[in-house]
Amino acid sequence: MGIVLIGERINGSFKDVGRAIQEKDKTVIRDWVARQATAGANYLDVNMGAASRNPDDFAWLIQTVAESTTIPVSIDANRLDMFSIGLKAYRDTVGERPVLINSTTAEDSKLIPLLEMASEYKASIIGVVMDERGSPQDVDRRLELGGKIFAAALEAGLSTDQIFLDPIVMPVKFMQEQARNVLNAIQQMTMLSDPPPHISVGLSNVASKTEEKKLINRTYMVMAMAMGLDAAILNVCDEEMMQAIATAEILLGQEIYSDAYLKAYRQKAGGTQA
Amino acid sequence: MGIVLIGERINGSFKDVGRAIQEKDKTVIRDWVARQATAGANYLDVNMGAASRNPDDFAWLIQTVAESTTIPVSIDANRLDMFSIGLKAYRDTVGERPVLINSTTAEDSKLIPLLEMASEYKASIIGVVMDERGSPQDVDRRLELGGKIFAAALEAGLSTDQIFLDPIVMPVKFMQEQARNVLNAIQQMTMLSDPPPHISVGLSNVASKTEEKKLINRTYMVMAMAMGLDAAILNVCDEEMMQAIATAEILLGQEIYSDAYLKAYRQKAGGTQA
Repeated sequence: MGIVLIGERINGSFKDVGRAIQEKDKTVIRDWVARQATAGANYLDVNMGAASRNPDDFAWLIQTVAESTTIPVSIDANRLDMFSIGLKAYRDTVGERPVLINSTTAEDSKLIPLLEMASEYKASIIGVVMDERGSPQDVDRRLELGGKIFAAALEAGLSTDQIFLDPIVMPVKFMQEQARNVLNAIQQMTMLSDPPPHISVGLSNVASKTEEKKLINRTYMVMAMAMGLDAAILNVCDEEMMQAIATAEILLGQEIYSDAYLKAYRQKAGGTQA
Repeated sequence: MGIVLIGERINGSFKDVGRAIQEKDKTVIRDWVARQATAGANYLDVNMGAASRNPDDFAWLIQTVAESTTIPVSIDANRLDMFSIGLKAYRDTVGERPVLINSTTAEDSKLIPLLEMASEYKASIIGVVMDERGSPQDVDRRLELGGKIFAAALEAGLSTDQIFLDPIVMPVKFMQEQARNVLNAIQQMTMLSDPPPHISVGLSNVASKTEEKKLINRTYMVMAMAMGLDAAILNVCDEEMMQAIATAEILLGQEIYSDAYLKAYRQKAGGTQA
């Protein structure tokens, strides 16, 4: 099993996607579905960003993505009502199909209802290791909250394979010591159970406001993979990133080496577009 | 403390260096001293390869390097007599200066006399975790032999900082599962003591006979750094490699982040040339 790649690009914070949401322009969205599918995304993250707070727009966006690909969607929102609308829109469009809830925190007010939804929709879920006290600055608190989410998710009937823990990547420019803490937290999270839950990060945050975004992102990605990371939300259309990931998978023995492994990786990439 | 970079290029296995050794052509050697110094080497490895088995040639080569730089030399050989000749030639040229013995194994017939030499010359030493039974294929045996070398070196009077353990990187093309074993061995070696000995690899072996040498080398390098590697023999003149290493050092908190960290890394690079 290689890494689970969650394509980040269908996000209203990007200008083209934000405009497409406001103008209900399906072509832009379908184009990003196709490009991320070709690049090898295993999930397509769908997030309105600041483009709209209207649940109807979210339902439209999810439907637009769902009807143009067989790649499962990652429903990315903050509000509970948005998740229930998003999950319903998804099921109405494609029936029962794998789907990812992105994300809950460890706060009971979010965790409990979102785990109920996950159970009802047979969805996987990302649990971000923060709570009402905010984001942890150390390894221990990350593990404590990760353990809480993991236990609650099992309790709610999810399988280990449906649970993704996110140790919260922070900008190296502003919180440099957190980069190493997250690496250590990843490694310790792999020891929560055997097999462990998935461990996922929102990768690009690490390089926020830096001048070497792509280099920092891909370097951190393969370092995190060495520690046990097996999922990430990232730019799957970054060719150098994908080459680095393919190489790390070979070096970790997750894919069989061949001289043409980069080509094989590209060919394996992508679900089908409808 | 960032990583210890041992420049691999003054090696008779490279055609230009092999010819220079045979023809006693100092310009080629001095050129590689200068280029590796500029690139940021902390040690310059000196190895005759198959170019010559004559101790006088080795003495000449070491003297040629030593007289043209203040960067310490890594004396790279197999035979015991070569080490004693190399160490003597080095001291005769530059007096007492840091120097690295590359390498001993865990075999007593090598380990004991080489540790005596290290002690006599105040040299550091690389201990490769193999013995008369050959190279280990698993993590435990790597640790066992690493522990043996570490204990013997301390016993011989070396400080922890003078001891480098090498877990033996193998070609991913032919022994794919060893790539991960070495990563795990690196991590466990960091727990041998506090502070731990240096952990060093001959990096380029991982990409031997592959078609993506540079990509595999730099990906494995930063993965190994995440696990605790802090030294390597490698091609310091590979610009993408050095950018990846500089980035990994930032992400591990070994260097302070600045927007111009790549430029800072280049400027920091290099000892003085005489």
